[in-house]
Amino acid sequence: MRKLQAFLHISADGYFTGPGGDLSWTRHDQDPEYKQWADENTRGESTLVFGRTTYQMMASFWPSPMAHEREPAMAQKMNASTKVVFTRSLSEATWNNTVLVQGDAIEEMQKLKQQPGATLTILGSGSLVRQFAEAGLLDEVQLLITPIALGGGRTLFEGIKKKLDLDLVSSRTFKNGKVLLVYKPAS
Amino acid sequence: MRKLQAFLHISADGYFTGPGGDLSWTRHDQDPEYKQWADENTRGESTLVFGRTTYQMMASFWPSPMAHEREPAMAQKMNASTKVVFTRSLSEATWNNTVLVQGDAIEEMQKLKQQPGATLTILGSGSLVRQFAEAGLLDEVQLLITPIALGGGRTLFEGIKKKLDLDLVSSRTFKNGKVLLVYKPAS
Repeated sequence: MRKLQAFLHISADGYFTGPGGDLSWTRHDQDPEYKQWADENTRGESTLVFGRTTYQMMASFWPSPMAHEREPAMAQKMNASTKVVFTRSLSEATWNNTVLVQGDAIEEMQKLKQQPGATLTILGSGSLVRQFAEAGLLDEVQLLITPIALGGGRTLFEGIKKKLDLDLVSSRTFKNGKVLLVYKPAS
Repeated sequence: MRKLQAFLHISADGYFTGPGGDLSWTRHDQDPEYKQWADENTRGESTLVFGRTTYQMMASFWPSPMAHEREPAMAQKMNASTKVVFTRSLSEATWNNTVLVQGDAIEEMQKLKQQPGATLTILGSGSLVRQFAEAGLLDEVQLLITPIALGGGRTLFEGIKKKLDLDLVSSRTFKNGKVLLVYKPAS
């Protein structure tokens, strides 16, 4: 069975987007150790999973010359990876290597997990994280906590019907103040 | 100048209280290292700072025989410590060593910080944390992250007017899955 994981930047007060969808706060203060980790994290093969909103935001940035110039390794990876988008309203995708999934999200994810292939990685897309966690399909959540308080926005797992006990798999603190916490649903 | 710090239990999705004020999720899975840290953290002298809601909840628990039986060290400390309560509606306190502060919270905290005495520690009381942070009076925030997703509740710094950049002071991971993150406002 393929692994389904989620990766999200989170503020110290728990938001993955600030008020009005603000993402400008995911600071990129580099330190060599963080850069090395980020590069390694980018290297592995993943099938990327998005909701429509996150997908459209990413699709307007990563194929652009600006992205290639500023973050070449990440841009290369984002453009080359298979991207699965859960959407009922989008009927066409212009970003390459995109698969649109219009059926029931839970059923479609169950099928995807049974197919052979790379690890499935949800980027952003909080409502998908919640849905898949509720259905018992989410295997791991990676939270990269940025040292900032936003005071508002959207939190992960918002509206989940039952509290979800987690186990901490690992933690890592970077000199730039970011902390990576990796959780899996408690067994 | 006295130090003003806040200590809060936080869920992995960023809430310090769950829906309807739920606090039942702050798990107490013990591991020896965590117990030692908690005991040491209890030992130091602090002046405790509360809003009315948190104060009334604490006042109904800590002086009780149940608290003495279940958490003797913490009960002893909570009862013995000076407790400062910011409230406009409470005019009398039955819990010993309580000082009621009914004036403007910011002005009163400015005065308190200039008086000699122990470190001022806010427990819970999210709206006080936000107000004092906005006024530049908060020196440190200690977040003890419990491995659970709640899906709703109250987040720290809710409604803060400006994003607040933080510096990570230290981090510590316990075997029971709790992670302590200590931040101060960025200089």
